[in-house]
Amino acid sequence: MSEKTIVALDAMGGDNAPLEIVKGAVDAVLASDEIEVLLYGDEEAVNAELSKYKYDNSRLKVVPTTEVISTSEHPVNAITKKKDSSLVRGLKAVKNGEADAFVSAGNSGAILAGGQVLVGRIKGVKRAPFAPIIPTENGPALLLDAGANVDCKPENLVQFAKMGAIYMRPILNREPRVGIVNLGAEEEKGNALVKETFPLLKEEKSINFIGSVESRDIPFGTADVIVCEAFTGNAILKMFEGVAKLFGKLMKKAFLSSIKAKIGALLALPALKKELKKYDTSTYGGAPMLGLRGLVVKTHGSAKAVEVKNSILQCSDFKKQRILETIQEQLGE
Amino acid sequence: MSEKTIVALDAMGGDNAPLEIVKGAVDAVLASDEIEVLLYGDEEAVNAELSKYKYDNSRLKVVPTTEVISTSEHPVNAITKKKDSSLVRGLKAVKNGEADAFVSAGNSGAILAGGQVLVGRIKGVKRAPFAPIIPTENGPALLLDAGANVDCKPENLVQFAKMGAIYMRPILNREPRVGIVNLGAEEEKGNALVKETFPLLKEEKSINFIGSVESRDIPFGTADVIVCEAFTGNAILKMFEGVAKLFGKLMKKAFLSSIKAKIGALLALPALKKELKKYDTSTYGGAPMLGLRGLVVKTHGSAKAVEVKNSILQCSDFKKQRILETIQEQLGE
Repeated sequence: MSEKTIVALDAMGGDNAPLEIVKGAVDAVLASDEIEVLLYGDEEAVNAELSKYKYDNSRLKVVPTTEVISTSEHPVNAITKKKDSSLVRGLKAVKNGEADAFVSAGNSGAILAGGQVLVGRIKGVKRAPFAPIIPTENGPALLLDAGANVDCKPENLVQFAKMGAIYMRPILNREPRVGIVNLGAEEEKGNALVKETFPLLKEEKSINFIGSVESRDIPFGTADVIVCEAFTGNAILKMFEGVAKLFGKLMKKAFLSSIKAKIGALLALPALKKELKKYDTSTYGGAPMLGLRGLVVKTHGSAKAVEVKNSILQCSDFKKQRILETIQEQLGE
Repeated sequence: MSEKTIVALDAMGGDNAPLEIVKGAVDAVLASDEIEVLLYGDEEAVNAELSKYKYDNSRLKVVPTTEVISTSEHPVNAITKKKDSSLVRGLKAVKNGEADAFVSAGNSGAILAGGQVLVGRIKGVKRAPFAPIIPTENGPALLLDAGANVDCKPENLVQFAKMGAIYMRPILNREPRVGIVNLGAEEEKGNALVKETFPLLKEEKSINFIGSVESRDIPFGTADVIVCEAFTGNAILKMFEGVAKLFGKLMKKAFLSSIKAKIGALLALPALKKELKKYDTSTYGGAPMLGLRGLVVKTHGSAKAVEVKNSILQCSDFKKQRILETIQEQLGE
């Protein structure tokens, strides 16, 4: 008998909560027998959504909570004060061993702060990075740290590199190429942090370090694991999102600008959508925080059921692939 | 009689040198009576190109040089050793007051290093940032520092903000909105550098500081002057380039994938090109280094004649707008 993965799910987080979150939970339970979901949220609202579906209710349970942390709230204040929020209760379930993982589409800052404070890091892991998948021409790449830890030390970046490689190895089914974000390809380039980190990564036997990566090359998949401190990583991640959004917007504008363009778009759109589909990361679920004593996954605030479902299934993969144990073995004290 | 702007032009720099560079110089001299160009480069090669055109040869002169710095050369070594290169000689012409500005499509690192070392900074300016125009939905924005100075201090960023505002004021013909790159919109967010810089920018009376800017919002033009240290700025600039290039590539792939898509593309492309044209920054010329005792402009390595021409004309605007003098008045000692 295979072991079940228990996922604590924040039913109240994100733009589409609880509707899409609950639907995602139901879909995940239907998709895999190995999943058990604990739905943290307002009992009445969650049950109202659940009543729409048929599912195995031995593997999908509601845990009533009375508070909600909104996306506009101050992260640290919110997790300190709202002790009966779906976000805090779900994270505590991971800490207490009642769940293997926590998934939320809610307040990013609160999830990141809560991961560090409420779940806690594996002993030996100095900082727990936020590690989203970046879509590239070459398939998925992992960017870490993309937002959790600013002002890092070289040893932190080395740990990010090792954890990133551990995480991506089973996803890619080959040895991931690890690169460090830099101003240019030459080894002597970089700020003080990169210059200090570079030789340490070069020495690190457990990873396949390929050197510097310029952000210009990231979309083309020159590295599978892209290491940087969180300020730069966040700028890169959000620039990707911003430019992609701008392109979407200007394409729409162009395609609607005349009858001729409209007809053209109608003919060309299926091919364009097929090409763009390759850059859809929702199949990988959400972005994990690595190095915690349990898995914490942040899905997009705008996540629909399919992304929620995939984020839940991702927790099962994470458990089967023994990512947490491997991080503990290789980085733990 | 209006005063002429003398531009030292690196005829040997960039992918299309000397052909497109020389053509750009001729076009600039034809476009404006107020421009005088000194073409630094291999006499024979440059004259061979020049012989194709008719122009006022009292305003376009060749200054023979014997060495060339390639893009692959180590910047500091190159400018130290190749004293008779077009790049070094052109920069020295600015230093010696023989030219107002230097324009090159060559080795970026050598231009940036040469600007600092050979031209030198205005007394009182601590660091001279590289400041490219970023195209946005709202028009041009200036990103600085995008590659010259890593590991900055708060006072450096404050100077970048002031110089950026001085540069953009005449371009926009209104008071530029100055923002600092940050992880989120909240004032308490940021790394140590941003947290220290934020209150200084808030106090700075000479600029219109609008607070934090997330890189996600940069393409939509939320700020006109975007301040950061060069490591982050470079990541942002190159991510913009990389994602734009990826989109171009995948659109092309989609549009060529079937007969139907090809016909669609044929119909929709004029509208798409018109929309994309708004994001073409070549009309603004190249990217200046600000705070030097003269203007140094880096154009794209792949620059064609039109961009070279615009970069030369930009030097004339810079002089007429008294940017250098204003920086000296507001930041100089």
